[in-house]
Amino acid sequence: MSTNHLPLNRTNIAEAHKIIKPYIHRTPLLTNQTLDTIASTPQSLSDLVGTGWEGSDRTPAKPKIRFWFKCENSQRIGAFKARGAFHALIRVIEELGEEEVRRRGVVTHSSGNHAQALALAGKTLNIPTHIVMPSISTPSKIASTQSLGAKVVFSGSTEPERTAVMREIQRETGAIFVPPYDHPDIILGQGTTGLEMEEQYAELQQGEKEWKTLDAVFTPIGGGGLNAGIATWFSEPSKPAGKKTLVFGAEPSFQGANDCQRGLAAGERVPAVSSKTIADGLRTPVGLNNWAVISDPSKVAGVYSVSDEQIKKAMKLVLERMKVVVEPSAVVGLAVCLFDEDFRRRVEEEGGEDGWDIGIVFSGGNTTVEAIAALFGSA
Amino acid sequence: MSTNHLPLNRTNIAEAHKIIKPYIHRTPLLTNQTLDTIASTPQSLSDLVGTGWEGSDRTPAKPKIRFWFKCENSQRIGAFKARGAFHALIRVIEELGEEEVRRRGVVTHSSGNHAQALALAGKTLNIPTHIVMPSISTPSKIASTQSLGAKVVFSGSTEPERTAVMREIQRETGAIFVPPYDHPDIILGQGTTGLEMEEQYAELQQGEKEWKTLDAVFTPIGGGGLNAGIATWFSEPSKPAGKKTLVFGAEPSFQGANDCQRGLAAGERVPAVSSKTIADGLRTPVGLNNWAVISDPSKVAGVYSVSDEQIKKAMKLVLERMKVVVEPSAVVGLAVCLFDEDFRRRVEEEGGEDGWDIGIVFSGGNTTVEAIAALFGSA
Repeated sequence: MSTNHLPLNRTNIAEAHKIIKPYIHRTPLLTNQTLDTIASTPQSLSDLVGTGWEGSDRTPAKPKIRFWFKCENSQRIGAFKARGAFHALIRVIEELGEEEVRRRGVVTHSSGNHAQALALAGKTLNIPTHIVMPSISTPSKIASTQSLGAKVVFSGSTEPERTAVMREIQRETGAIFVPPYDHPDIILGQGTTGLEMEEQYAELQQGEKEWKTLDAVFTPIGGGGLNAGIATWFSEPSKPAGKKTLVFGAEPSFQGANDCQRGLAAGERVPAVSSKTIADGLRTPVGLNNWAVISDPSKVAGVYSVSDEQIKKAMKLVLERMKVVVEPSAVVGLAVCLFDEDFRRRVEEEGGEDGWDIGIVFSGGNTTVEAIAALFGSA
Repeated sequence: MSTNHLPLNRTNIAEAHKIIKPYIHRTPLLTNQTLDTIASTPQSLSDLVGTGWEGSDRTPAKPKIRFWFKCENSQRIGAFKARGAFHALIRVIEELGEEEVRRRGVVTHSSGNHAQALALAGKTLNIPTHIVMPSISTPSKIASTQSLGAKVVFSGSTEPERTAVMREIQRETGAIFVPPYDHPDIILGQGTTGLEMEEQYAELQQGEKEWKTLDAVFTPIGGGGLNAGIATWFSEPSKPAGKKTLVFGAEPSFQGANDCQRGLAAGERVPAVSSKTIADGLRTPVGLNNWAVISDPSKVAGVYSVSDEQIKKAMKLVLERMKVVVEPSAVVGLAVCLFDEDFRRRVEEEGGEDGWDIGIVFSGGNTTVEAIAALFGSA
């Protein structure tokens, strides 16, 4: 892809939004009273059993929380990844010309949502796409990527095996690599989620006497493209001299999938992760470009992690109370707000009587009833 | 309840809507391209194996279908039942006066959505509610009814056991019975769903050159209140000399739960049903008031039934493709449109090149991840 990178700033995200708008959905921003009530009720001591706060003599926090859920599970292909893929592909076409890109095609490696996102962008813009997928990928994901017209090529599941297959495709076809998360054009595309949240939050407040901004926004962190994009968007206040929206990240802690949180604590990016967390979209280490944004404390105010049990609890609440289907990766931010006593204490202290309006990005909804059954079945 | 019944017509539904509007959600009317495409693609011969059309030499129908999903799963308490309960309770208060109703309270029997709906209406309007529930009801349903402030009283699960407990409560407290479905005030309340569908469908077409009406609307039929209400709304064209929207009903066929369809064939209402269909909201026979509407061919154009397997297939599509959580009862109408060759042939023939715009009422979303696991788990 291009080495002629656009700087990461609000202007370029607004520009990206103009470019991809015809191709993506403006997904809804939903509220939910039941979840607000649950989040604004102190946890009981029994809720804390098995967590780091068990047996602490601190009283459970009593924050006041109102959620604003950005439903990227209703985005095209069922995840925010459509934003970055369309933006990156259109930028490549602008740079090299339609003819050349159509002749060479594009290639990526992904077993998940980025595969379908690039396949959709390629199909829409009439560009051949090659997707390298581990041969152990679930048949339904392979089928849906193929049904979007992509050529799926199988590889082993390790990084070197995947890269070898990708190189071979590039040698044969000249295909241009569109990375899944670690690239400025991808980051700018994902950042458009933040732009829409700000717009929609303002629209929903029309008629209120005082213009407010979201106090905080949570996104999941896997490769980090979504978090870096949204942190870029909110790195400046939306109104001169206005209040800045704080951006937070959330990760699964299972088997060390909280590489970003651990990296921040150690002052150094963790370059590899091997975790089987149920949040399968978040098993990736944070990319280099994304790390540069996320490790900047003026852009990201904190990264928290939650257990797989807490992810399941949050997912159950979203399915049963909001009637919305999300994948496990989508609810890590909500799980932090519901279960992390340090974060909840912060909201109680900083939000006070008013509380906080917290935006939660539901990053995707690509799960199956069989996967839900495997998570919640008694068998 | 009142014996001073309002006639079933559009005017009284519009009146009911004005009365209950402050208390209910105007649930969204959603479209979905993926489901339109699936419905508009002929079934393969292998899809027909095990159905009544297996081995038929008829070519599978090729209808053109656009869906408009009315999401009553996002209604308060997760089902359309909130509409009828609020309307009926407000009418009782109007007739007897707030003081008397508050003193006597109201009572009903229900193990399902009507229990929570009446509990919510009672809590909101500060009227004591007594709910008779079979002692074998799932603990989560009992808990949510109680959390809405209702007094839950247990009974056996047969009709006479239930009625005996209800009579006792009435003797002790003077509580007024608010029936779950077989009453004009309930029917008028549920009919407001049709009013909103018509309004929202018109709004979503603004800017189109020609003003259209929905060609058809499908609702599930259990006790029949929702279908009778919506059929009442659409019994007159929305514009003078305009086209009438056809109203259809759908039922599960498992163990004879298609009592309405069977009754229509025999020319006589089937008064009792005993079925363990997965569509647990539809195990009830059609009520007398509802039968009078539904058996009138000028109001209801047809009632179809689907197997539990077909209900599961439709539910899987809604959860995975629309990312929307529905209970099995909610998707019987969609299942007819997807799988019933007689109905699909009708759309092909009557809709022709233009096809049909079909409204589907997703009646409720009260299921749990454990129930989904039980339906779709491999165990």
